[in-house]
Amino acid sequence: TVEHIFKEIFKSALKLQETDHKKELLVSRKRKPEDTIVNINGEAIGNGEPTFVFGPCAVESYEQVAAVAASIQSKGLKMIRGGAYKPRTSPYDFQGLGLEGLKILKQISKEFGLAVVSEIVTPSHLDEALDHIDVIQIGARNMQNFELLKAAGSTNKPVLLKRGLAATIDEFINAAEYIISKGNDQIILCERGIRTYERATRNTLDISAVPILKQETHLPVFVDVTHSTGRRDLLLPCAKAAIAIGADGVMAEVHPDPAVALSDAQQQMSIPQFDEFYETLQKFMKSYEIHA
Amino acid sequence: TVEHIFKEIFKSALKLQETDHKKELLVSRKRKPEDTIVNINGEAIGNGEPTFVFGPCAVESYEQVAAVAASIQSKGLKMIRGGAYKPRTSPYDFQGLGLEGLKILKQISKEFGLAVVSEIVTPSHLDEALDHIDVIQIGARNMQNFELLKAAGSTNKPVLLKRGLAATIDEFINAAEYIISKGNDQIILCERGIRTYERATRNTLDISAVPILKQETHLPVFVDVTHSTGRRDLLLPCAKAAIAIGADGVMAEVHPDPAVALSDAQQQMSIPQFDEFYETLQKFMKSYEIHA
Amino acid sequence: TVEHIFKEIFKSALKLQETDHKKELLVSRKRKPEDTIVNINGEAIGNGEPTFVFGPCAVESYEQVAAVAASIQSKGLKMIRGGAYKPRTSPYDFQGLGLEGLKILKQISKEFGLAVVSEIVTPSHLDEALDHIDVIQIGARNMQNFELLKAAGSTNKPVLLKRGLAATIDEFINAAEYIISKGNDQIILCERGIRTYERATRNTLDISAVPILKQETHLPVFVDVTHSTGRRDLLLPCAKAAIAIGADGVMAEVHPDPAVALSDAQQQMSIPQFDEFYETLQKFMKSYEIHA
Amino acid sequence: TVEHIFKEIFKSALKLQETDHKKELLVSRKRKPEDTIVNINGEAIGNGEPTFVFGPCAVESYEQVAAVAASIQSKGLKMIRGGAYKPRTSPYDFQGLGLEGLKILKQISKEFGLAVVSEIVTPSHLDEALDHIDVIQIGARNMQNFELLKAAGSTNKPVLLKRGLAATIDEFINAAEYIISKGNDQIILCERGIRTYERATRNTLDISAVPILKQETHLPVFVDVTHSTGRRDLLLPCAKAAIAIGADGVMAEVHPDPAVALSDAQQQMSIPQFDEFYETLQKFMKSYEIHA
Repeated sequence: TVEHIFKEIFKSALKLQETDHKKELLVSRKRKPEDTIVNINGEAIGNGEPTFVFGPCAVESYEQVAAVAASIQSKGLKMIRGGAYKPRTSPYDFQGLGLEGLKILKQISKEFGLAVVSEIVTPSHLDEALDHIDVIQIGARNMQNFELLKAAGSTNKPVLLKRGLAATIDEFINAAEYIISKGNDQIILCERGIRTYERATRNTLDISAVPILKQETHLPVFVDVTHSTGRRDLLLPCAKAAIAIGADGVMAEVHPDPAVALSDAQQQMSIPQFDEFYETLQKFMKSYEIHA
Repeated sequence: TVEHIFKEIFKSALKLQETDHKKELLVSRKRKPEDTIVNINGEAIGNGEPTFVFGPCAVESYEQVAAVAASIQSKGLKMIRGGAYKPRTSPYDFQGLGLEGLKILKQISKEFGLAVVSEIVTPSHLDEALDHIDVIQIGARNMQNFELLKAAGSTNKPVLLKRGLAATIDEFINAAEYIISKGNDQIILCERGIRTYERATRNTLDISAVPILKQETHLPVFVDVTHSTGRRDLLLPCAKAAIAIGADGVMAEVHPDPAVALSDAQQQMSIPQFDEFYETLQKFMKSYEIHA
Repeated sequence: TVEHIFKEIFKSALKLQETDHKKELLVSRKRKPEDTIVNINGEAIGNGEPTFVFGPCAVESYEQVAAVAASIQSKGLKMIRGGAYKPRTSPYDFQGLGLEGLKILKQISKEFGLAVVSEIVTPSHLDEALDHIDVIQIGARNMQNFELLKAAGSTNKPVLLKRGLAATIDEFINAAEYIISKGNDQIILCERGIRTYERATRNTLDISAVPILKQETHLPVFVDVTHSTGRRDLLLPCAKAAIAIGADGVMAEVHPDPAVALSDAQQQMSIPQFDEFYETLQKFMKSYEIHA
Repeated sequence: TVEHIFKEIFKSALKLQETDHKKELLVSRKRKPEDTIVNINGEAIGNGEPTFVFGPCAVESYEQVAAVAASIQSKGLKMIRGGAYKPRTSPYDFQGLGLEGLKILKQISKEFGLAVVSEIVTPSHLDEALDHIDVIQIGARNMQNFELLKAAGSTNKPVLLKRGLAATIDEFINAAEYIISKGNDQIILCERGIRTYERATRNTLDISAVPILKQETHLPVFVDVTHSTGRRDLLLPCAKAAIAIGADGVMAEVHPDPAVALSDAQQQMSIPQFDEFYETLQKFMKSYEIHA
């Protein structure tokens, strides 16, 4: 029918327009077809081999971080994560050690040869933080803190940008555009679960966001299996799914003694759990990398 | 059965504990049973009579704001809203006039005798903003920008805090606690719709949040009918519902020429629409106030 | 710009098309501009004056229903609700008295002169049910049980159709179209809350669905304040909001002894609570009806 | 602190109680630790090797289904899906061929040696359907059509139960319990995406539901990659993720000419796309099965 043809014309015109718009974004694959490789202290992120970022939720003490760092180092990994500034729902919850925490991370970084990923929550913290960390993390709650995005985009440090609690993929991509528009293209996107009605998990891991983000942008895409699930028993299966679907990296939380952790006690792995998690994942990876 | 009794004991104990926790919050009604009245340039907010805050989404020019201000003033109202710093999904959308916009608002404030509500998006903007505005608005995207909350809590200006895009009521209350914990109790909470699967409206107005927030806290509660619905045709019915359910105020956007607005064109009222909206609402109010 | 004009052409064409599509629906106001009045045993529903439907969640015994019926009758109301077939999450929860429950309702109906609203959950129950009830309720879980919708549409009884747990307004309207397409236009739509991430209420009352449904269709629209909130303390404020926004009716659950109710114990009103609820609402209504 | 100990006691007691409750469910792994193997015409489902179910969204003609069946048969697969009764949002959309469609499926089944999976939407259709199909599918919209669940539980045919549009995992498990409580333990659970705010995909694939369902129940768990994503380009990556996370089977839609399909045109694979999809997946599987 004529109406049908009409409809199809509209659809393609609308799609064309949308495509045009997306083509304009600096992060879009239409603008730059080849993958962006993020360079972190000489390590390449997004080159086809998954990267792993482990570490405690929050920096609590030198000893705590060192215990995790030693375990990471022993696996031949090159990065550690740990929060010094902790965005917490209640002002009366542990808010992180702040600059003191960053100093601990810096010391750990030197001693164990690990690049440090740590969250920055406001532009004014950036200056002092830049000397202490290797990757600026921007957390879910700040994904649309546009002044922070612009400030991070004005540095020459890689940025790990987490998806907002209830951000659409389109909003997520535009948040990355705020960073790149200031000149910094060293951006890693991180899916960390979205807020839905389901209560069996802390958030709902939106696994299909990974291939969508890989198609729409040229940036590496990580999956945070800890925050997306909030359940220790789901870390391993979700990490497998993340790698199988093409994620460039996996993040998870490790604590020497999860039971006494000052935050996220229920979802962090102990070091023996971490060992088992990593070993099983390596077996899965080995087969996958060779044959798939 | 014994099990049932056991269960009831658990339940009451858990409720007790939760109650205890909530009692500790400075914003909680358990801590302070009487309503907080927020004082804005001599006007009392939260004293039982609904307050109205109208104005353009974004400040675009002196003339644009003045046209709306004149209409507000003619209705005997005392407040105007307008965005100078606009948080926008894309970095290429109009970002607001910034300090220039605040200066326009200041001038309007003087000329029309209106208190100015304007959004601040990052702590470093606060200093220069304080001279120009009467109420610090913290927007939905920044509801958990904790450094901004703390900074606003350290001023002596009233704060209008909007609920986050997908914030729970509990998170919303705790965000207000960040402000009050720094010494500033002049806080207005504003329900502005939450993100759900429904696409008929821009967001879903969570009208039952109003009585819950009134019960749980001693703070005034507003409803933003523009952002919650995103539809001009729903402004009036939702404003009626807001007032009926006990909101302390209603916010809505007005623009002299919505079709050419630089943001939110589809949802702002023109001045004649505003006149009709306000008149109808006043009739509804009049009956309501006298008899209910 | 040309692009802008182009975009506007698309938009209006798309809207035109959508409008056309909606015009075709038998439930749409475009097809029939005047309000449909549903006639229930001589009472007119949707004629501008709100209707009230109260009653227990589930029919448990003659005595239980009679106690509520007496209270309803004493208020001059003409309808009662009560579930004989109860759709329950677990097969081991109380499933309702079935036909026995319908017989109790029939007897109550005669003795107290009340029209009976009761949920039917599968087409094969309809035949025996038709002799016992005055209004066929189709519950949220069955909003897209299309065979049931068609069966109800083939009867000459009024149908009260509840919105699905996570149904869009568009799906809701189309569900009603299944009924009317079989020849039955005596349909009442009922907003009963939607499933969202928020946990403070059992569901989120989508109050703005009321004016949207009134605009899009010519059918009466009710609000179920019990199921939407799941909280006794929110029944009254939500009922006020429902009436203020233009709902044609309000439903709420009443039980002579909520603490021992076989279902929904926490959200049903006792009879004294019901008395107070209704009296306060009447005061609110009185002022509203006269002046607004 | 004492309070902390108290809290821990509550928590464990509550968990204990919940565990007890779950233990009682016949579908729960606590009740039956070993995996249930579903037997479909001699093929074992849930024995560690993934099963594949392909076929058109709707049965449109003998030729259409035969074309897909030939392609399935050529891959050595043993099952086909196809809808004869199609639950559609609008009563004016194609509703399926009904019994005629079942007869086509029966003929295809004989000619190509494939077991047939087809959706039944109301109990009264079951009798005639049982002669024509091998697996009763219960669709998302009917997950809480309890009379249908009970009717399917009273047959001796395997049941493929899809998760509701916005069903919690707990509700999903309880829906399966309705079936098993009638004596039929041949149940396959199928994750098919949940309704969220995200619009980049038709639904959000809740991949972590797979390991949770495997832990909580002893039933096989499938993933429908077509309905969860609604995008042809996501079928392959999501199928890989499903297999990697431990799904017992994958479902996807195949149509000889998707462009003219009477339903779901945009998301079905053509036969060449199906060939490529299956070949790539087999490569992925091969490596995975051997080494992981």
